Parts: sequence; C-alpha cells; structure tokens
Amino acid sequence: MKRIWRNKQKIDSIDYMQYKEHVGINIRDYPSVLNQVDMIHLTIEDLCIIRSLQEQVKEHLTQIVGDFYKNLENEPSLIKIIKDNGSVDRLKKTLHRHMFEMFSGTIDDAYIKQRYIIAQVHVRIGLQPKWYMSAFQDLLQSLIIHVISNIKNIEQYQDNILAVT
Amino acid sequence: MKRIWRNKQKIDSIDYMQYKEHVGINIRDYPSVLNQVDMIHLTIEDLCIIRSLQEQVKEHLTQIVGDFYKNLENEPSLIKIIKDNGSVDRLKKTLHRHMFEMFSGTIDDAYIKQRYIIAQVHVRIGLQPKWYMSAFQDLLQSLIIHVISNIKNIEQYQDNILAVT
Ligand code: HEM
Ligand code: HEM
Repeated sequence: MKRIWRNKQKIDSIDYMQYKEHVGINIRDYPSVLNQVDMIHLTIEDLCIIRSLQEQVKEHLTQIVGDFYKNLENEPSLIKIIKDNGSVDRLKKTLHRHMFEMFSGTIDDAYIKQRYIIAQVHVRIGLQPKWYMSAFQDLLQSLIIHVISNIKNIEQYQDNILAVT
Repeated sequence: MKRIWRNKQKIDSIDYMQYKEHVGINIRDYPSVLNQVDMIHLTIEDLCIIRSLQEQVKEHLTQIVGDFYKNLENEPSLIKIIKDNGSVDRLKKTLHRHMFEMFSGTIDDAYIKQRYIIAQVHVRIGLQPKWYMSAFQDLLQSLIIHVISNIKNIEQYQDNILAVT
C-alpha cells in the first residue's frame, strides 16, 4: 500500500500493529516473488490489517463462498468445468480454507508453493484467465461488501481497501 | 457492483445519474464479453460513477502515469522490454490516453476491439501476465489514492470503489 497520509493514520495503526508478531513475509525459494510484492506495495502494515480482518472474513465466508459459486452458475461453460473436475461441495470447501489462509497475514515459501499449485490446477482444468480474473474481481467485491463495509472511519476504510487490493 | 444498501444510496445516486445519457454498454460483435460484464457486476450506475470521475482522473493522470512507470523501474526485465519496444515517453502518452478513455463510461465494440489489440501487444512483447497484473494493481491503488480518496461520505466512497474494482 502506498501511504500519503501517514500522520493521520497513527491512531488507527496501533490497533493493527498488535498483529505484528503474527504476520510476515519470509520467502527464500521464490526470490522473484519479492519483486511482485514490491510492485503492488504490500507492506507489513498491510499484512497486519489483513490479519486483523481474518475473524470477520471467517464469519462471512460461508456466504461469500456461496455467492461465488452462484455467480459462476451464470456461465454454463464454468459449471461444466466444475462438474467435470469434482463437485461444487468439494470446491466450496477448498475455497473456504484457501480464503481463510489468505488472511493469515503470512507469506512464506509454503504459501507461494501452494499458490503455484492452485494456478496449475486451474490451467489443467482449462479455465480461461478471463474467467479466473472475473471471478477474482467478484470475490474482491464480496469481501469489500461483507467485511470492509463495517468500517466507519473513512481513512481506516481506505487503508483496508488498499491492503486487500 | 453488488448493492445491498440501495436505500441509503438514493441521494448520492441522483448526482451520478446525470451521466446516464453519456454512458452505456453496447456490444454486438463480442457477445461473450457480456457474460464477463455480468460476472463482475458492472452496471449502468457503475458506468455513471466512472464517468463522473473522469475529470478528476484527468487532473491526476500525469502523476498517476509517471508513478506507474517509476514503479516498473524496480524490475529490470520490464525496463528492458520497454526500451526494446519503443520509449518511455511514447508509452506514457499511450497509457495517458488509454486511462482517460477507460473513464468515458462507454463500452462498445470499438472499445472491446481496442482492448483485444492492447492485450495482443503485451503478449507480443513478451510481458508475463504476473507483471501485467501487478502493474494493474498498482494502477488501481493509485486511482484510489488520487481520485477516490477525495470522497468524504463513506457510502459514496464504497460505491466508487465497487464501481472501479
Ligand atoms: C478467485 C478465483 C478462484 C480461486 C481463489 C480459486 C481457488 C481454488 C483452490 C484453492 C483450489 C484447490 C486447488 C488444490 O487442489 O489445491 C481450486 C480448485 C479448483 N477450481 Fe478454483 N478458484 C478460483 C476460480 C475458479 C473458477 C472461476 C472456476 C470455474 C470453473 C474454478 C474451478 C476449480 C476446479 C474445477 C477446481 C478443482 C480441480 C481439482 O481439484 O480437480 N475455480 N480453486
Ligand atoms: C495495467 C497495466 C497496463 C496497461 C493498462 C497498459 C496499457 C498499454 C496501452 C494502451 C498500450 C498501447 C497499445 C497500442 O499499441 O494500441 C500499451 C503498449 C505497450 N505496453 Fe503497456 N500497459 C500496461 C502494462 C505494461 C507493463 C507492465 C509493461 C512493461 C514492460 C508494458 C509495456 C508496453 C509496451 C512496451 C508497449 C508498446 C508496444 C508497442 O507499441 O510496440 N505495459 N500498453
């Protein structure tokens, strides 16, 4: 996250920073990922914010995941891919676990390795990138609506948006 | 955009809706794009919001585009691609025009065709999708910081975020 109003944020930041010991970026095996982390301006403070959202994400996850698959149902080709490669129920469970892990605030080699596996799975099942990206935008919007919209302070709201974006 | 607080939004919405005559989705040649529009919940109201941001985007565009290329400079392989395929100045101009057009609020066949050409250009120059996506996230964060952070009403803020996300 880029910060241009750091001073205003001091008070809110203390709250997030309680997670500092529980989050971190610890990558040895995939050095090029660090350049990506840099390019999207992901900081430890962002990871603290992300971690601070984990409990709320958990509360809404069943609905978020349900909506996610309901949304895919509008595209018959996606339903076919899902039916051919498992079941909606199994996929819901995997996505549920995956989303929860994403909000742990920890990015290490195991995390990156798992993301590569997930990417390969989607290539293998023939999912077109445009659908992956559309589904991703849907998921991001869901998160914003269910989790971040509870925040009433606009600067804190923006900090949270920038952390997950 | 998904809407779950429609009632609260009535007052702000009137403002956006003044652009209703100037925006629209009018696609004949690329029917499958309509499914994508659906999946990301892009509505006419979103297009109005996007259009309402165009003037502000224009004001900040020189800086946003400048920051965009400064950010790419952190990755040597990207600098090489740019040098091999034109000049930073030309690219800045193209991105500038492209971003302004994106906020016109009109999605028609010409717009989609142009997006396909742009996608092909990036494939041709060998830009890896991960870099395109990282750069895209950077651009989105820039827009949020420079343009949307001027909004002081939190519900209007969220409407705007969901429109551009
Ligand atoms: C943001 C978007 C998405 C995320 C985060 C996501 C996440 C995941 C995860 C975590 C897995 C488990 C991978 C593993 O085996 O370890 C998975 C598998 C799978 N996903 Fe997705 N997914 C997304 C989009 C989609 C879409 C749009 C489809 C539509 C067809 C889809 C279809 C599948 C299928 C069929 C599998 C199971 C493959 C198998 O295990 O045989 N995914 N996804
Ligand atoms: C959100 C991300 C990006 C957007 C919106 C974007 C937009 C554009 C646009 C509108 C063009 C003009 C295409 C045309 O000829 O009509 C273009 C060309 C180009 N882009 Fe990007 N770009 C993005 C990311 C990148 C990145 C990360 C690089 C890094 C190397 C890059 C390198 C280039 C180059 C070298 C060309 C010129 C190709 C040529 O005309 O010979 N772009 N881009």
